[in-house]
Amino acid sequence: MSQKLPSILAEKIAAKSRIFTVQSQHLAFSNGAEVVYERLLAGDGGAVLIVPVLEDGTLLLIREFGAGVGRYELGFPKGKIDPGEGWKEAAIRESQEEISHLPKKVELLDSVSLAAGYMTHQTHIVLATDLHPSEAPGDEPEPLEVVPWHLDDWQELVAHPDFSEGRAYAALLLVLKHLGKI
Amino acid sequence: MSQKLPSILAEKIAAKSRIFTVQSQHLAFSNGAEVVYERLLAGDGGAVLIVPVLEDGTLLLIREFGAGVGRYELGFPKGKIDPGEGWKEAAIRESQEEISHLPKKVELLDSVSLAAGYMTHQTHIVLATDLHPSEAPGDEPEPLEVVPWHLDDWQELVAHPDFSEGRAYAALLLVLKHLGKI
Repeated sequence: MSQKLPSILAEKIAAKSRIFTVQSQHLAFSNGAEVVYERLLAGDGGAVLIVPVLEDGTLLLIREFGAGVGRYELGFPKGKIDPGEGWKEAAIRESQEEISHLPKKVELLDSVSLAAGYMTHQTHIVLATDLHPSEAPGDEPEPLEVVPWHLDDWQELVAHPDFSEGRAYAALLLVLKHLGKI
Repeated sequence: MSQKLPSILAEKIAAKSRIFTVQSQHLAFSNGAEVVYERLLAGDGGAVLIVPVLEDGTLLLIREFGAGVGRYELGFPKGKIDPGEGWKEAAIRESQEEISHLPKKVELLDSVSLAAGYMTHQTHIVLATDLHPSEAPGDEPEPLEVVPWHLDDWQELVAHPDFSEGRAYAALLLVLKHLGKI
């Protein structure tokens, strides 16, 4: 069913910090109801999350400190798309920086939102294959640990307490489907 | 591998709006590197995302305007855990408010983060079954549309452009696994 989008009566920046911008939007729904929402504005280009798969079906995961969750998180390499880059260039760059591999093949599997109700952020999920060792310096405070994990062991990955990001689950579901594993 | 957590040298509120709070954290990693991160602080209780499954395998989804993505989003019922509630009570209440069904059985499948690097938010994914019609008034600006979707058609759901939240993909993966569909 297609629904008429609410009209935007007014919008303004409600708060701003070094990396976050909160926008307030005054909306009128088609039934006349008016609501003021707040939402987080993402940067222009969005982010990429890379699913690197070696020829034998091994995923290259990373373990990295997550300030949000306050512990080391097990997940896929990812990063912001820089100005002038597309998802392809960003995925290739981040693969070199975070897992020290250059993918000769990258495919966009899907794009996901984080919280549709209050974040504009989009993450592009990219399958990276035909991987060759190739390093590039990243901007992390400490070297990232690369964790090989075979795709056939995906149920153990889902059950791992340090694998917690919704978009990482999404990436796993998409790659399992794409490669005919489920 | 267990890694030593960074020490928190200082933290303060960097910005605040009606619904968002940004905290700045000055961290020292075990290798001596110091970084100032910003992260979004979630409310105390976290949120629930409910996967309501009828006896014949039909999911009850909702279509709701998402101010973050600026369009109607297709997804699972969800909401914040109110003070004094646990995930069970919140899941039962939100099911009545959003899909007009009372689940007699609720099971916690897993808890996911949104962005481990910069959000403290946790979403508890709850399987709701033995569902019986029972309404409760919600706080939405317009009535939510309930969209039945058979679990066997999950590949079409994943491909649907309005089904976009990472945590919704996570919920789908978890319920498919839990019910032995994959």
